[in-house]
Amino acid sequence: MFDAKQFIENSLKEIKLDVGDNRVISACSGGVDSTVATYLVHKAVGEKMIAVFIDDGLRRDGEPEFVVRILKDFGVNTRFVDARAEFFEVFKGKTDAEEKRKAFREKFYSTLGRVAKEEKIQFITQGTIKADVIETVKGIKSQHNVLGQIGIDSQIYGYKILEPLRELFKPEVRMVARELGLPKEISERMPFPGPALSLRVLGEVTAERAAIVRKATQIVEEETLGLGTFQNFAVLHNDKATGIKNDKRVYGNIITVRIVNSIDAVTAQASQIPFEKLMKISKRITSEIPSVVRCLYDITDKPPSTIEFE
Amino acid sequence: MFDAKQFIENSLKEIKLDVGDNRVISACSGGVDSTVATYLVHKAVGEKMIAVFIDDGLRRDGEPEFVVRILKDFGVNTRFVDARAEFFEVFKGKTDAEEKRKAFREKFYSTLGRVAKEEKIQFITQGTIKADVIETVKGIKSQHNVLGQIGIDSQIYGYKILEPLRELFKPEVRMVARELGLPKEISERMPFPGPALSLRVLGEVTAERAAIVRKATQIVEEETLGLGTFQNFAVLHNDKATGIKNDKRVYGNIITVRIVNSIDAVTAQASQIPFEKLMKISKRITSEIPSVVRCLYDITDKPPSTIEFE
Repeated sequence: MFDAKQFIENSLKEIKLDVGDNRVISACSGGVDSTVATYLVHKAVGEKMIAVFIDDGLRRDGEPEFVVRILKDFGVNTRFVDARAEFFEVFKGKTDAEEKRKAFREKFYSTLGRVAKEEKIQFITQGTIKADVIETVKGIKSQHNVLGQIGIDSQIYGYKILEPLRELFKPEVRMVARELGLPKEISERMPFPGPALSLRVLGEVTAERAAIVRKATQIVEEETLGLGTFQNFAVLHNDKATGIKNDKRVYGNIITVRIVNSIDAVTAQASQIPFEKLMKISKRITSEIPSVVRCLYDITDKPPSTIEFE
Repeated sequence: MFDAKQFIENSLKEIKLDVGDNRVISACSGGVDSTVATYLVHKAVGEKMIAVFIDDGLRRDGEPEFVVRILKDFGVNTRFVDARAEFFEVFKGKTDAEEKRKAFREKFYSTLGRVAKEEKIQFITQGTIKADVIETVKGIKSQHNVLGQIGIDSQIYGYKILEPLRELFKPEVRMVARELGLPKEISERMPFPGPALSLRVLGEVTAERAAIVRKATQIVEEETLGLGTFQNFAVLHNDKATGIKNDKRVYGNIITVRIVNSIDAVTAQASQIPFEKLMKISKRITSEIPSVVRCLYDITDKPPSTIEFE
């Protein structure tokens, strides 16, 4: 049985030992993993740590403001980096899923590396958890935060990596969050991938297309609040389909809604939520987002699907 | 109230009058509309009519054999044209929905025109119904069999067009079929579009991709037999998604399942069929078709979607 209290005790000691007299930067996306990692390191080394929130233009509606507010509530030194234009620049012309992940990863690390250099910092904290490591090693996907596992030397980016949660699965991370006394909006927070909405824009990721999936995501999250499902999100297809708007034929966008039940993200089940709820989501998405004419619901478990599309 | 018996009486007289001493060809796809039209003209002018079944490589599993057998059972002179290679040729490099419809229409008419010429025939019978006319005129889609409505002179293809069902809606066509004593497998047959599986292969239509959606369609039809829904089918996306097969990451195909309730195809509702059924369809499609990793269910009514994707 996992003992969260014991884990925290050991972890704080190890982090102090690892960091020594160095300074640490923690990339915090607002997800449960990176927020717990940030808070642990903050607790361990205090003023030696700076949290960085990188706004890559791919966050959910209201998320940048939410994360910065939470970090301030924790009393953490926080730096906000607006890198939206830079991220959309590197996605230009890229449509392949692995190329997009790679582009995100490189931009993420070069941005973090730049900040670390400016701040004269040697250590980066990340919220890598065990499922990320397993899937990267298995070749199921390349997690952007598991560099060492795939043979990339993080030193080339100019810093060492600290991953205090790498031995934990998601439910254990949540237990640690509760034990640390973090608010429910963090400890019970729905998983959200590192490369964020870029995985949910099939084809080229542009600011306009990210805005469409951001709005659809907001609708899905509003309508599924309290369902208790593991992850609820929207995906914008690159494919288009015919539809009818204002009595005219249009060739418009397709959104898929994905809602899954899972314990640890290693396996997952398509959630059998009530049809009226699905129809309400479909009607809202196709009416509140003018370019969308069609809404689909993902009915595939993991395996054979992954939770995300890319 | 529509009187099928009266309609048939009037129709037979009109057809005889229209055709006169000419000979007629009837393009029969096996759908209820074209089969009823074919049978009506056969009844009206007998030996003056030849039915043509064009195998465009885009028909459902077993359909070419089924249609030819039915026509022979009716005692209709039937000509089978294998045009599969020609059709796939014209789809090469085409990904836009309207371009694909246009390519299909042109190849369909040139093939029919060629046969009509060989047979020295002036009249073509088609199963156009009122919904086709309305949607073409409204610009919702261009039906391949409503040439006159969109200002195309059918004479350029070398023949005149006979459309005995153009004033009827789908339920009336079915009443006529029953009144004519056609077997249930025709009178209650699910609608199937003229351009067939080409509308259900998003992106380029190739023989390989048509085979994938044909297999998925067969699974959907088997699993939804007896549900009493209006139309049940599968669509192959051009987009791909990640999945896991044999413990390895793959970047595979996506299939959408579309099942709708409708009276006349002018409006339609996404069918709220039991989740266990949807999950069974998803599991069969992703296991019986190796390249497919993800299965989606369309939850959009018409409007704002159309029934088909293209």
